[in-house]
Amino acid sequence: MANENIPSSGDGPSKNALKKAQKAAEKAAKKAEHKAQNAAAREDLYGNLPMNRSQEKRPVTHVPLKDIGRNLSNQTVTVRARLHTSRGKGKQVFFILRSQASTVQCVLCVGEKVSKQMVKFVCNITKESIIDVEGKLCFYSIYTGSVYISVQFYEKKVIFKCVDQIVATDQKVESCSIQDVELHATKVFVVSASLPRLPLQIEDAMRPEDDDPEGLQIKVNQDTRLDNRILDLRTPTNQAIFRLEGGVCHLFREALRAQNFVEVMTPKLISAASEGGANVFGMRYFDKDAFLAQSPQLYKQMAIAGDFGKVFTIGPVFRAENSNTHRHLTEFVGLDLEMAFTHHYHEALNTIGNMFTEIFRGLRDNYADEIAAVNKQFPAEPFKFLDPPLILEYREGVAMLKEAGIEMEETEDLSTPNEKFLGRLVKAKYDTDFYILDKFPLAVRPFYTMPDPNDPKWSNSYDMFMRGEEILSGAQRIHDADFLVERAKAHNIPIHTIQSYIDSFKYGCPPHAGGGIGLERVTMLYLGLDNIRKSSMFPRDPKRLTP
Amino acid sequence: MANENIPSSGDGPSKNALKKAQKAAEKAAKKAEHKAQNAAAREDLYGNLPMNRSQEKRPVTHVPLKDIGRNLSNQTVTVRARLHTSRGKGKQVFFILRSQASTVQCVLCVGEKVSKQMVKFVCNITKESIIDVEGKLCFYSIYTGSVYISVQFYEKKVIFKCVDQIVATDQKVESCSIQDVELHATKVFVVSASLPRLPLQIEDAMRPEDDDPEGLQIKVNQDTRLDNRILDLRTPTNQAIFRLEGGVCHLFREALRAQNFVEVMTPKLISAASEGGANVFGMRYFDKDAFLAQSPQLYKQMAIAGDFGKVFTIGPVFRAENSNTHRHLTEFVGLDLEMAFTHHYHEALNTIGNMFTEIFRGLRDNYADEIAAVNKQFPAEPFKFLDPPLILEYREGVAMLKEAGIEMEETEDLSTPNEKFLGRLVKAKYDTDFYILDKFPLAVRPFYTMPDPNDPKWSNSYDMFMRGEEILSGAQRIHDADFLVERAKAHNIPIHTIQSYIDSFKYGCPPHAGGGIGLERVTMLYLGLDNIRKSSMFPRDPKRLTP
Repeated sequence: MANENIPSSGDGPSKNALKKAQKAAEKAAKKAEHKAQNAAAREDLYGNLPMNRSQEKRPVTHVPLKDIGRNLSNQTVTVRARLHTSRGKGKQVFFILRSQASTVQCVLCVGEKVSKQMVKFVCNITKESIIDVEGKLCFYSIYTGSVYISVQFYEKKVIFKCVDQIVATDQKVESCSIQDVELHATKVFVVSASLPRLPLQIEDAMRPEDDDPEGLQIKVNQDTRLDNRILDLRTPTNQAIFRLEGGVCHLFREALRAQNFVEVMTPKLISAASEGGANVFGMRYFDKDAFLAQSPQLYKQMAIAGDFGKVFTIGPVFRAENSNTHRHLTEFVGLDLEMAFTHHYHEALNTIGNMFTEIFRGLRDNYADEIAAVNKQFPAEPFKFLDPPLILEYREGVAMLKEAGIEMEETEDLSTPNEKFLGRLVKAKYDTDFYILDKFPLAVRPFYTMPDPNDPKWSNSYDMFMRGEEILSGAQRIHDADFLVERAKAHNIPIHTIQSYIDSFKYGCPPHAGGGIGLERVTMLYLGLDNIRKSSMFPRDPKRLTP
Repeated sequence: MANENIPSSGDGPSKNALKKAQKAAEKAAKKAEHKAQNAAAREDLYGNLPMNRSQEKRPVTHVPLKDIGRNLSNQTVTVRARLHTSRGKGKQVFFILRSQASTVQCVLCVGEKVSKQMVKFVCNITKESIIDVEGKLCFYSIYTGSVYISVQFYEKKVIFKCVDQIVATDQKVESCSIQDVELHATKVFVVSASLPRLPLQIEDAMRPEDDDPEGLQIKVNQDTRLDNRILDLRTPTNQAIFRLEGGVCHLFREALRAQNFVEVMTPKLISAASEGGANVFGMRYFDKDAFLAQSPQLYKQMAIAGDFGKVFTIGPVFRAENSNTHRHLTEFVGLDLEMAFTHHYHEALNTIGNMFTEIFRGLRDNYADEIAAVNKQFPAEPFKFLDPPLILEYREGVAMLKEAGIEMEETEDLSTPNEKFLGRLVKAKYDTDFYILDKFPLAVRPFYTMPDPNDPKWSNSYDMFMRGEEILSGAQRIHDADFLVERAKAHNIPIHTIQSYIDSFKYGCPPHAGGGIGLERVTMLYLGLDNIRKSSMFPRDPKRLTP
């Protein structure tokens, strides 16, 4: 008999049984359809993208997060960013996207196109994963809850759909850098997933210093940060610090290029310790011994003897100094310059001073966002400077210290505490965080420093200070070979160890002066940070050689 | 008796004897006066200045030699420059002043204000001494000799003075860079004297390569140049080479800054050999072992994993490679960049290609004088490039080589001769000195290179070439930790040696690509120089660690 499975008529099934069966069939059909819809949705609307191996060349239409604002409201955009935080709430998930210094709030709600599965998928994306989100930018709105409304008939049955009830407001998203708009997500794809367990939480690492008066919240200590630097670098603060540090280099170069300085490159592998034998890293170099340059000074001076007139160079400087302080690194970046002058080393001193003014002005004017971002975590007074910069003679500085009760000799070197104290006195008296101390005592300077022409107690040398800490040391250098020998002997330096240095001045050399600046110190002090490890992307100290 | 020495009258002296005595007295008086005049002159008009110890602060009114031209003719100027050459000719001395790339002819003649002694003094100034010269800028004139003319009466006697007979002409001073005018010196002071014996003559060091078909003139070999680099650097050629090299750095940075790249600084002291154990310099670091970074790659990639998006860095790169070739150095300057991309690594490849176009355009437009100066000594064809740059696939390059008779496998690495030959083929076919070779065989690239998505034979990697030599190597890097482990294993690299590198990609990392450029190679090849030691100010190779 055909159709055995179809109930025959006659003493057939009851109407109820028939209805039941119909309902079951309907349900199964709906379920299958739903599944199919979701499968399609998964592919179209969310999911894990395959590893990017450049499978497809397409125009880049992603909008950088930093460009998002009120101007794009009501537009549908795609952004790529990290999942900063997320919070599932029933049929919705609120999440914050972070890209460099920018954060934006996103919402995804179960609705016409968004399945429960999609919300669940997004809820399960691990923090710090990189995701692509497509959505509509809307003025920030308040969700007053979601309601089910009838939206369509399915074979004469009313189907209810969950719809979010949104009320647009003037409120701002206080927790995000983008405060005017939020992103109503419609598609979410994972580009690169993070492990779920993070060695540090970005939220902890970016928490303001003064946000936790009772010490209840988690702090991330410096070593944990540095051990996991790729995570730590992602905080808006670090994004800002290192952008500003790149800016210091740029402003340094631009100020000097405008004065016809030439950029030169100097070797780091050298055959003799450049600043005497102490604190130098040694190594084997094929069949010879070599050292790592403690400064580019000899080479800058050779560039002057080689007629480049005014030179600068930016590069690593190595100091095998077992100092574990807040301001010492074993490898740091030197911003060095040297220039021939015509009559007086103050031509160089003023060039350097004015260069600093231009750096400070450039940072203030072009890096205001970065400064604000850093201040949010590490509050500091704005950096003050005078134009032209303040120049004090060493003896004036000592007099100020003496007047303030410090006991010291006129030609005694400045101790670190006295240096800082003098910075405070100068700030109080002149209202500047930058000043130049000129004419240091000859005895506390290196042998190649030009003595004062009138008084052998003093020298044509100077330091420059930011917030009371030395960031540049410089001088007129001795450009006469015979006098250099005389001064080296006075310092008990064996002449044969510096013979090639001396020889550089035997074939005519213009009088010249210069200085070396520690980049990380400038960044640290400009921003008022408390540790040089905060302004070195991958700091090196006696205990740290990684990452 | 008084006045014993004065002849008494009476049988007094003859009229002749009296005349004689009078003449002798006159002569003595004149001589004394002359001496006094000269002494005054020596102080005012010529002499050795005391060593500059910044005795006096004065406005700088010296005119830079490069600013001298027809526009200043008939004006009295003071310049500071080196004595390049001098030639005494009786009562005149012709000398050439040199300052950086500029040279100007000077003349000093015995005359109204100029004594014989002064001319002699100038004749004796050693070459390469730095001197201050005051004089009047005149159109280039021909000296038709000097004549004595009567200019004044001295106690009724006619005094003859030597005056130079000058005829202004339209001729140019062919031997100098400043050809329109010459300086008629009136004051000459030595600022810094050179030793008389120079280890090399600047004239020899700057002689054009093709100026001596019969090999009669003295050449200065490379080692002598480098041993005496401060002298060698003074040639107009070297002045130009290193100014242009500074320009390459500037243009590199400006092109990338315009694309929102961030400048970062990466450490050179590292705890593990960055590119495998070979060719790395090792050293002691306090109680640990350390190495010198063979590239900043890991750190650039960490900056990407740390969300900087697009980064560049300029710094020294160390290779303990015992290669003594025209293009290898043990320490060179790396221009490195790395960028996250959205869909395809060609976003990075095109960014880099366009950056090179901007560098080449900038050099051509802004460094024409420097290029001309170098070409004068080392003639080379102008550097040609296409905009946008030519991109060939590796297999296309191999096909061109095969077509030209080279036998090689499709996925075989390019040998240096084949690389150069391909450069010539590309030049002949496309008329460009710069091109990009894309999609290298996977087997010849490092483990972290992203394989092609469709064919495991190829990879998403590229080299870029100038005049047929590689100047950049780059690739899409693997940004997925698991896949990186898989590829490292395929290369038999022990995972524990690169664990921290792998860990960098565990917390979400955008797909990214980049490359590293050898600065000295770019300079060398752009200018068509034959040796990388010509474009490194203080080159380091297995045999050279000085100066």
